[in-house]
Amino acid sequence: MVTDHERHVLSILAEVKAESGSHSPSLFTLADRVPGLRVSVDACFLSNPYATDLFIDRLTTDLIETGAMRKVLESYPSPNSHIAGLLEETLGVDRSQIFVCSGAIEAIQAAMHRFAGQRVGVILPTFSPYYEYARPDQEIEFFHLSKNDDFALDVDAFLTFVRERRIDTVCVINPNNPNGAYVPNAEMRRLLAELADLPLVILDESFVDFAWEDEERNRTSLASEAAAMPNVVLVKSMSKDFGIAGLRAGYAIMSPGRVRELLENGYLWNISGLSEFFFRLFTEPRFQSDYAKVRLQYIDEALAFFGAIADVDGVRRFPTMANFALVELDSAVPIELAAPLMLVRHGVYVRDCRDKVGLEDGQYLRIASRKGFENEAILDALRSVIASCRTAV
Amino acid sequence: MVTDHERHVLSILAEVKAESGSHSPSLFTLADRVPGLRVSVDACFLSNPYATDLFIDRLTTDLIETGAMRKVLESYPSPNSHIAGLLEETLGVDRSQIFVCSGAIEAIQAAMHRFAGQRVGVILPTFSPYYEYARPDQEIEFFHLSKNDDFALDVDAFLTFVRERRIDTVCVINPNNPNGAYVPNAEMRRLLAELADLPLVILDESFVDFAWEDEERNRTSLASEAAAMPNVVLVKSMSKDFGIAGLRAGYAIMSPGRVRELLENGYLWNISGLSEFFFRLFTEPRFQSDYAKVRLQYIDEALAFFGAIADVDGVRRFPTMANFALVELDSAVPIELAAPLMLVRHGVYVRDCRDKVGLEDGQYLRIASRKGFENEAILDALRSVIASCRTAV
Repeated sequence: MVTDHERHVLSILAEVKAESGSHSPSLFTLADRVPGLRVSVDACFLSNPYATDLFIDRLTTDLIETGAMRKVLESYPSPNSHIAGLLEETLGVDRSQIFVCSGAIEAIQAAMHRFAGQRVGVILPTFSPYYEYARPDQEIEFFHLSKNDDFALDVDAFLTFVRERRIDTVCVINPNNPNGAYVPNAEMRRLLAELADLPLVILDESFVDFAWEDEERNRTSLASEAAAMPNVVLVKSMSKDFGIAGLRAGYAIMSPGRVRELLENGYLWNISGLSEFFFRLFTEPRFQSDYAKVRLQYIDEALAFFGAIADVDGVRRFPTMANFALVELDSAVPIELAAPLMLVRHGVYVRDCRDKVGLEDGQYLRIASRKGFENEAILDALRSVIASCRTAV
Repeated sequence: MVTDHERHVLSILAEVKAESGSHSPSLFTLADRVPGLRVSVDACFLSNPYATDLFIDRLTTDLIETGAMRKVLESYPSPNSHIAGLLEETLGVDRSQIFVCSGAIEAIQAAMHRFAGQRVGVILPTFSPYYEYARPDQEIEFFHLSKNDDFALDVDAFLTFVRERRIDTVCVINPNNPNGAYVPNAEMRRLLAELADLPLVILDESFVDFAWEDEERNRTSLASEAAAMPNVVLVKSMSKDFGIAGLRAGYAIMSPGRVRELLENGYLWNISGLSEFFFRLFTEPRFQSDYAKVRLQYIDEALAFFGAIADVDGVRRFPTMANFALVELDSAVPIELAAPLMLVRHGVYVRDCRDKVGLEDGQYLRIASRKGFENEAILDALRSVIASCRTAV
């Protein structure tokens, strides 16, 4: 049974969601609009909480305890090109090819506005800025992934689509958001090589740290290969793997000419002092080795979690190599009740995908992996709400 | 006498400056390149240190001591339009006219790239992005302020210039950077009214908190009037008055149609969680009243400081209503020695204006006001270096 109070909160949540367009309300927006609401597990946004711990530890020892925080808040950060210079060794890419950005979304915006052609091929479902950030003069052509194929990308079918539709700009996220399907590097290399004649291919590797192809679970990034392809813009968020979405930090790898074009009339101080602090940590071998550990721990727990989700009665979980899983709810469990009830009753925030273009054929949730004990809470909430919804209907 | 060691450091500083283009190297860049250098007073960048104290106090009590910092670093901030909604009451401008930005420079870039016409009128000397951020298809026409007029803007002469040069886009900073001259509101209103037929007038009020026209030294912003003029984009940094350049926070006020145009295909999560925290403080009456006190204290000390600079032998100080003063060095004091020696010998970082277009007719420093005791150190350094340079020459 849904109580009157719950129905009231659900109606406010529906309003807040409607106001937020194609994205989920932030925790801060939720707190503004639903004052009593307590979010105990955020499985809506997508980040490694162990990496957040690591960053906070270093923030505490290096900035708070030393008093150096003041300088970071008070002073202008270094300009974009200087930070690119700091990153070149760690990324294995020349500084002239690194564009530092305030979250990957800034690089997506820049690439769509400045480098994209007239006909943009977008794979659905996707991260909505890939079509929302189009210029008015651009046409978007959607390539639909299918539930029947587990939302996997068929590279040959996509290549045929690109040619048939005379597409000049391609956006690929790997692993894809919001479903998590992964195209192995051998296939992705073939895709990039086949599309080398297009003016722009955006390869978004924001979730690549969660994917692997070998037993050691090494990272699978194509960054250095992308750097050698003048038409490729490789986009990388730091929000997910490093658990620092609030900082707004990312980078893109692109041809030196494109970096010059962006920096010659913009983007001088586009990242904050705290993002500069993060990028400096990122270049430290000690931070990298600490991060490597929490990356593996997180991947282990995510695998266990995704396995457990697949076993929940009333859901279908799709294959994923990201840090989240796309989950389809049984038709007997109405999503307009299930998703907000997980939040209101259990404090568990998951991504209700009803607004996701390309996911109209079912009821989908996207659920991020968190720490082990939080994942237990997510599973409990999911099971309990499913049971409750089935009774209610 | 300049020692060999000093000459060595000076040559590195000259290199770093050359690499930094038309801006000064950040404190972090300086530390990378000149490891032993100690900057004890930053009078190069321009911010109220008492306001920084206030922000750090609140950061400490509200985020660090409570543990809420984690959420701010880990979570996505609220989207642009939600933060605009938070600001409307404090700014006295409808949310539909507020564009929140990652430092004023992001709004300058957006206005220059998206709204500016073909012929841009820029008043020299200026903040270099006003001409550097032009698109390749734009022509910049420079209107030169003159040392003989104390770099004051003659509104009638500027209006004639705009008409004669068929300028369609005008950029005015008030008080102006880097000289600090202020156009009183009555004159500025006349300027805006006369230019109401242009497609775009950018009014940059980033230093307006340091200007006043009455005995109570009230702020003189034209924000609400600018909001009623569809062609005006009013740009406002929070870096200077609130002493938080490292956060990257600012806003612009413009027509609802222009805000919509920017947000419909970009700028979703363009500010960090810490900037959102700042903007939330900014809307608190308590924070505003605390800020009003430190604003007045800072203005008082700045006035005393600028008076003392004018009395230093060997400099000419130009009139200012900003938090910095433009200072011309006597020709017997070579600036290529004076500016870096203030830094190397005294740890005092001032803005060497040799790279400022429009200031080629003299040797200019821009010196920001800091806390009283820091201002004393700046004066001591200035006097000492002038004496030393005169002996050296």
